[in-house]
Order: sequence, then C-alpha cells, then structure tokens
Amino acid sequence: MPDRKAVVLLSGGLDSCTAAAMARAEGYRLFALSFDYGQRHDRELQAARDVAAALRVEEHRVLRLPIGELGGSSLTDPSVDVPDAPPAAQIGMQIPSTYVPARNTIFLAFALASAEVAHADTIMIGANALDYSGYPDCRPEYLEAFERMADLATRAGVEGRGVRIWAPLLSMTKKDIVEAAVAVDAPLHLTWSCYRGGDKACGTCESCVLRRKGFAEAGREDPLAYEVG
Amino acid sequence: MPDRKAVVLLSGGLDSCTAAAMARAEGYRLFALSFDYGQRHDRELQAARDVAAALRVEEHRVLRLPIGELGGSSLTDPSVDVPDAPPAAQIGMQIPSTYVPARNTIFLAFALASAEVAHADTIMIGANALDYSGYPDCRPEYLEAFERMADLATRAGVEGRGVRIWAPLLSMTKKDIVEAAVAVDAPLHLTWSCYRGGDKACGTCESCVLRRKGFAEAGREDPLAYEVG
Repeated sequence: MPDRKAVVLLSGGLDSCTAAAMARAEGYRLFALSFDYGQRHDRELQAARDVAAALRVEEHRVLRLPIGELGGSSLTDPSVDVPDAPPAAQIGMQIPSTYVPARNTIFLAFALASAEVAHADTIMIGANALDYSGYPDCRPEYLEAFERMADLATRAGVEGRGVRIWAPLLSMTKKDIVEAAVAVDAPLHLTWSCYRGGDKACGTCESCVLRRKGFAEAGREDPLAYEVG
Repeated sequence: MPDRKAVVLLSGGLDSCTAAAMARAEGYRLFALSFDYGQRHDRELQAARDVAAALRVEEHRVLRLPIGELGGSSLTDPSVDVPDAPPAAQIGMQIPSTYVPARNTIFLAFALASAEVAHADTIMIGANALDYSGYPDCRPEYLEAFERMADLATRAGVEGRGVRIWAPLLSMTKKDIVEAAVAVDAPLHLTWSCYRGGDKACGTCESCVLRRKGFAEAGREDPLAYEVG
C-alpha cells in the first residue's frame, strides 16, 4: 500500500463519515478538517470529533471561520428558521435557504492549504449531487473546475504534483451511500445530520429527510433518534 | 454611472490600495475585505483600515482566519525569519518562503461569499504577475481558473449572473502601478508593504524592494520611512 495522504473534509454527517471511511479503507493516511462557522447545528462538530477518533485519523483540526458573519443563510442566521423539506419530488430543484454562500469553496480552499503543507495528494469531500439539496457547489462540474484551479494555485501544482479532488459519493443515491458506509464499516452511529441542532434530530428538515430516505431504502436501521417518527 | 458593487481585497499595501482606488474611480460601490491571518506584519491591517476610510468604502470587514495555524510560511511562522530579497534578476524566479499556501484562494473564496451576499458583480484583487515574488496564485491563468470555478459555485452563477475577477495590475510593472496610483489619487501615504512588521519598513525584504523599485522608476517619492536608506 503506498504511503499516501488525504485531507478529508469532515462535517460530522453521514456523507463525510462515509467518504472518510472509504479513504481509510483505501489505505490513505487521513488529515481531517472540520469547521466551526457559526452553523446552528454545531453539535455536528462533536460528531466530527467522534468520527475522527473512531477512524483513527492522524490529525484532526477544527478551524473557526467567520462565515456566519457574512450572512445570507438560514443555517447561520438565528433570526431565520430552517425550513422543513419540500415534497420529495421537489428536493434539489431549487436552492434552499440553508445554502451557505461559497461554503464549499471556502472549505476546499482550506483543504488545499492543508494539503499543500502536509504534502497530501488528495482532498476528500463527501459531496453528493443526486439525493441532495441543489447546492451549486456540490455539482461535478464545480468540483472539476475547483480541481483545475487548485493545480494552478499551489507550489505543488507548479512542481507538477497536482491535487485530486476525490468525491466518491457524487453520483450515489442516499441508499447507495448507506450501503457503501456499511461496506467500509463507517461509524454511522457517531454521525449527526440534522440542521436544526436540537437535542434530538428533527426528522423533517431536508438533511434529516434525505438521510432517513437513504436508511429506509437500504433497509437499514438509522442509529439516530428523531423527534418525528 | 451604473450602480455596481465590487468586493475589494484590501491588504493595506501599495497594490491593493491602487486597485481599490481604480475601482472607486470607475464609480463602483466598494465593499472591502481584509484578513487577520496571523501575518507578522499585522500593522498592514491598520493601513487597510486607513485606506478604506480614505476611499470612503461602503463597508469594511476585517475577518480573522486560522491560516497561520496551518503553517508552511515564514510570513506567519515567528520561528522562521523573513529573508532579504534576492538580487533583482532572481526575484520571481522561485517561490520564496514568504509564500502562504493557498492564501489567495482562501481570500478570494471569502470575497466570493461576500459578493454573493452583497450582489456584487466584481471582485477586485491587486495581484501582479510581473514585478512580483513568483507566488503561483498571482498568475493570470490562476485567476482565470478561479473565475471559471466561481461561476459554478454560487447562486449568482446558476442564475446567470457571474462574478468577474478584476485584476487590473496583473501585467503592470511596479513603476506602472505607482503611476496608476497617482492618476487615481490613491492614498499611498496610508499604505504599508513591509513583511517584517517593525516600527519602520525594513527596506530589504522582497516586498520593500519591489515597492521601492516602483517609486524610484516612477520618479516619485515614497511616503514611507525605511530602516535602510
């Protein structure tokens, strides 16, 4: 197994936990990054710490970012409610208020800096563009454009060692993701997905709805407890 | 004059002050962003505040970013000395230790978020790829790739309102920049360029050397006092 390093973006949710476990299964040394950015569901950060420990990552940094200060999202603005998910057929058709402007670009930029310093050749992101909320910065064409830009941005790129943006969940359904997670023994019992950040997951926000759909379709029991059954 | 908004990256140095003054001269409403990222020359932030006030920007945010924590640069690591500039002919031939991994990608990512929230159609950066230090993320091909990525990253892009990365100094010499600054009445007396962050500008780091070259070749007096005459 080659000695390869991957910077993994670890939110604490289902998708990033699965992606990180896939990288571990491939033998990567893992450098995890999480972000405290004013998200109302900051308990996902404890989930990220637990997942990182369970995956025995080499390093886990939680970086505080002033994204919430910029506004523009119900996920970081306590004066705006997080909406319930729309009917299933409409999910992903419009960009919802939980979209955080340029969030993945900011996260990937820090991952790029981290990869440059650690000499990692891979950045791992659990982005998904099928059972997803329609966020523009989860689409394959966006990630490809980021990768092209990244090759021009760094010393590594100038020296001919590009960085790969690896998004293995990109075209999976949530059912596929749950099955992939089980296959690589991802610690799903430690994850947190709900946007609302209560004591129990709400069960009705878009993130909960998509997650529950995945577990139900895979015929697996979701280890999370929900407010709404 | 159309009511157009530009997010301007304002470091407090010669180049960004000139770029911002050019945007003001074109009639843009200015939204300035500066970053406190652990740079040893953090007095440039006071310069940025003074420049922002002199240019009567609509808003000036100073965001604290955990870039220094990631390491990899003499500009943020107090245990590594900032080197003197190499001989003039060698400047820009190699990436120096003052390079901060992925810095412009991180800065531009925050500018993109800010532009998305403010509905600005332009991001202004004082990057220069002629009389410069060889940083990969100042090159035109990098900025073009960022712009392509940005169009795919945001709600504005999805709705057909792309954002322009405007870097008017890109192919100017430092002499050209000083002359452009004078032409648009940029408040150069308020700027700070030295990397070393002492009471007086050192005069010998690469940033000082490039700046002084510009003033000397333009036949203008540099309003800054230097340690080394």
